[in-house]
Amino acid sequence: MLVQKYKDMLGGKSVIRELSEFATARGKEIGYENVFDYSLGNPSVAVPKEFNDAIIKALQTMSGQAVHGYSPSLGITSVREKVAASLEKRFGIPYRAEHIFMTSAAASALAHAFRLVTQPGDEILTFAPFFPEYHPYVDLTGATLKVVPPNFVDFQINFDKTAEMMTEKVMAVMINTPNNPTGVVYSEDTLKKLADLMTEKSKQYGHPIYLITDEPYREIVFGGKQAPCVSKYYDNTIMCYSFSKSLSVPGERIGYLAVNPKAEGAEFMVPMCGQISRGIGHNCPSSVIQLAMAEVLDLTSDLSVYETNMNLIYNELVDLGIEVVKPDGTFYIFPKAPEADAKAFSKKALAYDLVLVPADTFGAPGYFRMAYCIDTEKVERSLPALRKFIKETY
Amino acid sequence: MLVQKYKDMLGGKSVIRELSEFATARGKEIGYENVFDYSLGNPSVAVPKEFNDAIIKALQTMSGQAVHGYSPSLGITSVREKVAASLEKRFGIPYRAEHIFMTSAAASALAHAFRLVTQPGDEILTFAPFFPEYHPYVDLTGATLKVVPPNFVDFQINFDKTAEMMTEKVMAVMINTPNNPTGVVYSEDTLKKLADLMTEKSKQYGHPIYLITDEPYREIVFGGKQAPCVSKYYDNTIMCYSFSKSLSVPGERIGYLAVNPKAEGAEFMVPMCGQISRGIGHNCPSSVIQLAMAEVLDLTSDLSVYETNMNLIYNELVDLGIEVVKPDGTFYIFPKAPEADAKAFSKKALAYDLVLVPADTFGAPGYFRMAYCIDTEKVERSLPALRKFIKETY
Repeated sequence: MLVQKYKDMLGGKSVIRELSEFATARGKEIGYENVFDYSLGNPSVAVPKEFNDAIIKALQTMSGQAVHGYSPSLGITSVREKVAASLEKRFGIPYRAEHIFMTSAAASALAHAFRLVTQPGDEILTFAPFFPEYHPYVDLTGATLKVVPPNFVDFQINFDKTAEMMTEKVMAVMINTPNNPTGVVYSEDTLKKLADLMTEKSKQYGHPIYLITDEPYREIVFGGKQAPCVSKYYDNTIMCYSFSKSLSVPGERIGYLAVNPKAEGAEFMVPMCGQISRGIGHNCPSSVIQLAMAEVLDLTSDLSVYETNMNLIYNELVDLGIEVVKPDGTFYIFPKAPEADAKAFSKKALAYDLVLVPADTFGAPGYFRMAYCIDTEKVERSLPALRKFIKETY
Repeated sequence: MLVQKYKDMLGGKSVIRELSEFATARGKEIGYENVFDYSLGNPSVAVPKEFNDAIIKALQTMSGQAVHGYSPSLGITSVREKVAASLEKRFGIPYRAEHIFMTSAAASALAHAFRLVTQPGDEILTFAPFFPEYHPYVDLTGATLKVVPPNFVDFQINFDKTAEMMTEKVMAVMINTPNNPTGVVYSEDTLKKLADLMTEKSKQYGHPIYLITDEPYREIVFGGKQAPCVSKYYDNTIMCYSFSKSLSVPGERIGYLAVNPKAEGAEFMVPMCGQISRGIGHNCPSSVIQLAMAEVLDLTSDLSVYETNMNLIYNELVDLGIEVVKPDGTFYIFPKAPEADAKAFSKKALAYDLVLVPADTFGAPGYFRMAYCIDTEKVERSLPALRKFIKETY
């Protein structure tokens, strides 16, 4: 018989998907360029030419077996070595190939990380507002995702609630910094406090609590800054990275899991990922994509457009009197809706062809998310519509 | 804490992996061209030029977002349409895009198929000899793989045992035809008998028993024949396909799951796969690989070398008095070892630089597997070594 739990999931359409479908349909009526679609986190900037060139070069110069043959189950060794070397150079942590596991982007890295350190019945703690896909990602493993309520002041961590919720059942804590949906980067102070609390609770419960850090937006930080490297603050850290946003290649499904060399059991964790793969049908990212990515490890797309867009929107929102924390990075901004019901707010915005995502499913009712990974020209054209909407409605 | 069940799996090295490592090490001593390595099922023939050309064309002519952007979670729609049309044309079954789910090759298709129709505690029946990875693939889902003993006469199905083992707990039957490791193709007669038995048992138990058919070797059939299309014989069939062997691209991780349009619940199954993906971190194959594959759907590599190799080896084995069923396809042959202990036999063969895989883990002790996806010239050079080994030892 078909398994009921998956059948039951079919009814629920995500609010983002619904809005995105509205945007597409409305685009057919008035031209998509006239729909101010802030619904989807789909990178808009160009893929670095070097990435495509590296694919073509591999196809033209390597043997078919070398470029299209089986990758070892942990990833192509030379690729893992290059990733480790790049991380060491960048963050000063002595990663080696044996700490790197190549994955089909962050979703797959997370799928392995959860299974490394939790069993059915265990809990994983995360922090609102959060990426709503975390729920099926975790809950379908048999573990349970517990969500700490937001710190609305600056969208750093609500530590009082965290201390309360970090019970003995919690085997892992998951953070996402730079954060979707707030755009906030967790500060050094936040990471230190979190590390202290996790160290204390690990001791108290007699088992390590691992920190799973989901970092697809690591390279998108504003003001010429860098996001603090999470692994530096806590040894038992499992980093989950994706090149989807930094190279604008979300369809290529390429990323990695990096185990802190000082983590408890570090020597077992990557080989264990290879075993986990057998149960979930994972078998590495595409070989040619691995090889090409390894050639452009230290490159990114031109990500500056996201900062330009953020400043335009942020200034307009502030000018309109909308409450908003200024993003440190990503391509998201997370303002407070001018009415308590963000769903109603979002619905009214559609009349102005503004597609804004209400944040109830992100764990922050009353807020909304704008994904500004769109052309700056369109952002500029959207601002009068936003102004008109707010002025006429509130 | 690290999850013990995955840690416990680390000890066990597969016999194939061990032998392959021996071959590599020995290759460093005497030159790999002098090691007659029949251990690995890694396609040796050239990738069709059209596949590489299609990748390059997509990179050079499409926008970055079109070629590297997010694929919908069920696969790129135009690609699913093309796969469905190709299957309909080929097999006369009215597949549509809604029956096709793009996967990271067969391992991933199987991972979804198992979760579609089984829950922890359920059983999946398969037939020895069988691909040993089926055990972790199934057992790590929480279901249990039950293996019907071989029919040693012709490596078709042992129906007496099958009828006995198809209990109420069996929710799915999995077959692999053309078969790894025997090279045998299940005949029309076998498929009809299996369908009859499954129909009868489904009625008796009041629930459908689904047929999961793992078909990566579908295009490698000898004597100008075609493998019977399994789905034609049983409506409740879930086909799992991979392009790894037909296009010689196992590293690109591309395949699909195709639900028979007449299957019970066919309309739900592909969308359910999309839900299953969320729990196992799957997110479609690489976009550019999907796009390129769709351009060469009706092509294969030049697979004739496998038949040439098979005939050379088969004739030599028969001449040496070794008991062997002639393969109908694949790039495997599965002879009976001339002593009861195939492991001991395989060990002795290493002295002749012959790397042969004992079949205990395939569920057929006393047999061994040769994967002849190697150059014909090497096959020819290996035959005197095989002859010498057998003559001197038995």
